[in-house]
Amino acid sequence: MSQLILALDFGGTKFAAALTDNRDSWIGKELLPAPAPASAQADYAGMLAMARKLLAGRQAAAIGVSFGGPVDAARNTVILSHHVQGWEQVPLGAWLQRDLGAPAAIDNDANAGALGEYTYGAGQNCSSVFYITVSTGVGGGLVADGRVWHGADGMAGEIGHMQVDPAGPLCLCGKHGCVERLASGPYMAADARAQMTAGSALWELCAGDAAQITGQLVAAAANRGDEVAMRLIERSATALGRGIGNTANILNPQRFVVGGGVTKAGSRWWQVLQAAARATALPEITVDIAPAQLIDDAPLWGAVALARAAVTSN
Amino acid sequence: MSQLILALDFGGTKFAAALTDNRDSWIGKELLPAPAPASAQADYAGMLAMARKLLAGRQAAAIGVSFGGPVDAARNTVILSHHVQGWEQVPLGAWLQRDLGAPAAIDNDANAGALGEYTYGAGQNCSSVFYITVSTGVGGGLVADGRVWHGADGMAGEIGHMQVDPAGPLCLCGKHGCVERLASGPYMAADARAQMTAGSALWELCAGDAAQITGQLVAAAANRGDEVAMRLIERSATALGRGIGNTANILNPQRFVVGGGVTKAGSRWWQVLQAAARATALPEITVDIAPAQLIDDAPLWGAVALARAAVTSN
Repeated sequence: MSQLILALDFGGTKFAAALTDNRDSWIGKELLPAPAPASAQADYAGMLAMARKLLAGRQAAAIGVSFGGPVDAARNTVILSHHVQGWEQVPLGAWLQRDLGAPAAIDNDANAGALGEYTYGAGQNCSSVFYITVSTGVGGGLVADGRVWHGADGMAGEIGHMQVDPAGPLCLCGKHGCVERLASGPYMAADARAQMTAGSALWELCAGDAAQITGQLVAAAANRGDEVAMRLIERSATALGRGIGNTANILNPQRFVVGGGVTKAGSRWWQVLQAAARATALPEITVDIAPAQLIDDAPLWGAVALARAAVTSN
Repeated sequence: MSQLILALDFGGTKFAAALTDNRDSWIGKELLPAPAPASAQADYAGMLAMARKLLAGRQAAAIGVSFGGPVDAARNTVILSHHVQGWEQVPLGAWLQRDLGAPAAIDNDANAGALGEYTYGAGQNCSSVFYITVSTGVGGGLVADGRVWHGADGMAGEIGHMQVDPAGPLCLCGKHGCVERLASGPYMAADARAQMTAGSALWELCAGDAAQITGQLVAAAANRGDEVAMRLIERSATALGRGIGNTANILNPQRFVVGGGVTKAGSRWWQVLQAAARATALPEITVDIAPAQLIDDAPLWGAVALARAAVTSN
């Protein structure tokens, strides 16, 4: 436990690096907005500078990386970034080994978050955890017996694109009524813009400027009793709850851990979520849904777990 | 491979016992209608008599059991039977060890079928297989890296009760639009009874006696162009296809293996199934759906795999 572990998180809008030698606190932590203009080289250089500043000449025993995009975890290679050019087939693990002299293990942010909550957060002492993050999108990851379940194409955990209502609105993926289309912040905001009426709480909160509406603002309007906002919040929680219940029927994980900005929508969102999940899962199946504990640090702590596993297995 | 393995299948309507010393053929196989009047003692006595006849004085190296009801696989104990009294908490593994002098491993029929197809059938050479049987109900099981995924309550694999259409008809489980409600034979037959019109192909095939309608008859009527029947067959395949696509998004198994009476509905059913699954899974996810190979013998071959694993680990 006294080994120095470096954790790196390449997020969509911000980068984070942190250093630990234990299970619950950072020796140091650095944050950086995603570099602009965006390129893989700039991303890597920015992250490397943070890492070197944190290490201050010390040697990390291992490095863990959470990457906001598809990765080939077995090969510690990034497949691509949906936001930034140049990340196609980048052997990020090898780059870090070369530049920082330590073995590096990589996974995508949803899987890293799942592993973080499983190992150090709300999923501790569970044999299996299905983790879900609900913010600009809806992502998920499954950890069982200490290992991330990647699936045959490395695509497991995509609960955001489970279809829960074929009569629902069209998702960017081409299907109607995906969990993400109904539950995520930006989609709720878009629907609120289209449905709000002059003089409503939504209208007041955005001061008549629909472009200002966010998922957070929809939640605030719902808490003021705005009917459109309340309906959207309930629809979000119902969709995700059904997705959780269906996943419980298929996988029966010991616990679901749910985090992300939308989970701050308030107690009504959580109540509807729990009720919908319970109603969807078969009665014999335990439905245990816990809020995420590590919040924004879940991917970083998952990176720590990845790094520690790499040291153990090497 | 030259060890003598005894496989037992306690099905809902019939019992089977078989003996093998290899991977693809039976030395002997016995069948028995489920004993009447039904009791756990009568069930066990009937099965034991078949086993002793097959063994003819020889000693099995191990025994595998597929049981048509919930079991505690870790304890080789039946939890209950939904059809027959007296099976509550029966230590079936211990009974068989006592009476036949060999270690016995037990799982439920969906998991045994999954393990059978994975080990000896359509799932060979796959790292992970999700098996589905569609007949009077819709059951499923996941096998990964040679082991059945049971889930925290032993309830994993219940794809039949994934909700795919909240606006769909009411399922016995209390939800609307479960896969089983839309895809299984008896529900299709019930809907055909309610919807058929005099003079239609459905009407002719059942000779005006609605009680004669089965899932098979609905498939036959669909193949004759009966509109009600065609719609029900398409709805069945669409529902199961969506269930498979949603499961692919969550788990991304290497292959789905689908068996059971309803899969004999014809090529249209398979086409719609494949298309619905492909449309529901994200484009990056491989959707490989193969028909079951072992058909009625899948649970027996799964029992063989259970028995062989028990010998290896003991």
